[in-house]
Amino acid sequence: MNTAGQRTCCGCIDVHTHVIPHDFPAYAGKRPDAAWPSMREAQPCHRHVMISGNVYRTVSNQAWDTGVRSADMERLGITRHVLSPMPELLSYWLDAEDGAMLSRYLNETLANMVAHAPDRFSALGAAPLQDLDRAIAELAFAVGPLGLAGIEVGSNVNGVPIGDPRFWPFFEAAEAHGAAIFVHPLRPAGMDRLVGPASLEQIVAFPGEIGLAAASIITGGLLTRFPRLRIALSHGGGAIQALLPRMQYSWECQRALRESIPVAPVDAARALYYDDLLYSATAIRSLIDMVGDDRVMVGTDYPFAIMDADPVARVASLGLGEAVEEALRWRNAVAWLGLA
Amino acid sequence: MNTAGQRTCCGCIDVHTHVIPHDFPAYAGKRPDAAWPSMREAQPCHRHVMISGNVYRTVSNQAWDTGVRSADMERLGITRHVLSPMPELLSYWLDAEDGAMLSRYLNETLANMVAHAPDRFSALGAAPLQDLDRAIAELAFAVGPLGLAGIEVGSNVNGVPIGDPRFWPFFEAAEAHGAAIFVHPLRPAGMDRLVGPASLEQIVAFPGEIGLAAASIITGGLLTRFPRLRIALSHGGGAIQALLPRMQYSWECQRALRESIPVAPVDAARALYYDDLLYSATAIRSLIDMVGDDRVMVGTDYPFAIMDADPVARVASLGLGEAVEEALRWRNAVAWLGLA
Repeated sequence: MNTAGQRTCCGCIDVHTHVIPHDFPAYAGKRPDAAWPSMREAQPCHRHVMISGNVYRTVSNQAWDTGVRSADMERLGITRHVLSPMPELLSYWLDAEDGAMLSRYLNETLANMVAHAPDRFSALGAAPLQDLDRAIAELAFAVGPLGLAGIEVGSNVNGVPIGDPRFWPFFEAAEAHGAAIFVHPLRPAGMDRLVGPASLEQIVAFPGEIGLAAASIITGGLLTRFPRLRIALSHGGGAIQALLPRMQYSWECQRALRESIPVAPVDAARALYYDDLLYSATAIRSLIDMVGDDRVMVGTDYPFAIMDADPVARVASLGLGEAVEEALRWRNAVAWLGLA
Repeated sequence: MNTAGQRTCCGCIDVHTHVIPHDFPAYAGKRPDAAWPSMREAQPCHRHVMISGNVYRTVSNQAWDTGVRSADMERLGITRHVLSPMPELLSYWLDAEDGAMLSRYLNETLANMVAHAPDRFSALGAAPLQDLDRAIAELAFAVGPLGLAGIEVGSNVNGVPIGDPRFWPFFEAAEAHGAAIFVHPLRPAGMDRLVGPASLEQIVAFPGEIGLAAASIITGGLLTRFPRLRIALSHGGGAIQALLPRMQYSWECQRALRESIPVAPVDAARALYYDDLLYSATAIRSLIDMVGDDRVMVGTDYPFAIMDADPVARVASLGLGEAVEEALRWRNAVAWLGLA
């Protein structure tokens, strides 16, 4: 086994880390009002992400600098970052052509970061799902010539849940290419149900949104259709823990539901992967209890404000023994990413 | 102790059971298109609930007949039903005057059912929250002259989450009157995120919706403002289990959040009550672990399709010992309802 392999196998893979490029190319499309991102200088080591003339978020050089990330990884005992775009950059609301250009730029940026240190980084790219043909073409380019491990997709595409059968051609291609899929909340449902500061979008609305996405994958029968698809839910699947026993109970007692949902919800849930970003040992153990200890992986939301600060200690706090801890730290991620 | 007291104290209180009246009065308002409900004969012992010319749901005589309910209760070992309207009947979308008329009719129907067997039934009425003054007046009438135990409220009122400060005058009155409040999902967020049959509204969207309502109560500071208010979340608070650790973690690491949310989310959550309608011993134990064994009560969704079929066995399956089981079966409900 080579050094890179040892690093992975003795360490910890963080499957949920985000990237924002240091710069974006100037907008070259046809829509003067396009929500094309740009970057602007901020305080030292920081830049503003600008979208539609507003500061969407201010981020540090952790977002683009592989050297800074490597230092953080050493400090935290993380041996591999799985890089994915900050979800807002998926930009499904752009015109299809613009979306394809932005996805291509993100994927090349990610590939360059991986090339800096392939023993430390893997990446999940973007695909312009507002146009299925372009999304399939970009998927092929990203996991083919660019060598990315897979694609990050939003929990919904302009309001259509990711489990909707209209996205099946994309997932058929993902299965064929062996691409890992990472589902992340984006423009969540329930924004009008929040009482408090703007950050509640991420804090309160994201877990429900990813739970709805997981439910749509289960009720839509995605894994029945594409059984070799390797698909992971971020944020531990969020509310899916609250939904699943109710879905299962209903499925068992209502024939109409059994006729429309091909596989028992609990079995469908066990065919998915999940990160462990639930901020609670009880909640992570409960997730493992529900979906199996071969389905859960470390994910932190690095480098954002509510990243899980000490993921290795989080796994150790579960008290599940070394074999399960090893599965959570790297073995399950290797399987999901197809690194083996 | 009298017989009624003994029945309560030795048995099991189901805090989550719904009522549909056998009939509604003819619409007497001014809007020809009002979504005023009516009932139509269906198969034997069943009636259709008609809203806006459509069959909203077909229900059996369990929905209105106290004799039928009593027989079911005997069979299941339930000693008291807490009656509340089928949530769609809360009808916040009606004109205020129409809403007040419908609430009054529902509350009188509930009071009549309780009068049939006060040792077996308590009731939570309706209040027309589309108009705060009328809602406060109806609350006073329902828990005063009619003797109801409290009010069932929707998780949102025409899209405004129930924790929004604009509803504080209503909750101030509820606290002053000692009225128990039961929060139930209604017209849930995320309807456009569902893939599958219509019943997914209840199965998949309700848990997220009640979780968002719970979060709005916590982030809006309702219990800080009205600390003697006794408020219960239906469906075990749904997704609140997925939200709470994330809310707490964020609150601890973000000063801006601590400044806008007056009490630690975990502490605010422990000030609420919850039914146990989670369909899983693991999930119920996890809820108890989070909020305390003095906060969880039996609730089944009787008489609807996915009612929890054997609530007493559900409590026994938790393996938490007789003292906790007793708290779940009746002691916590007595405290919440103010029956003592």
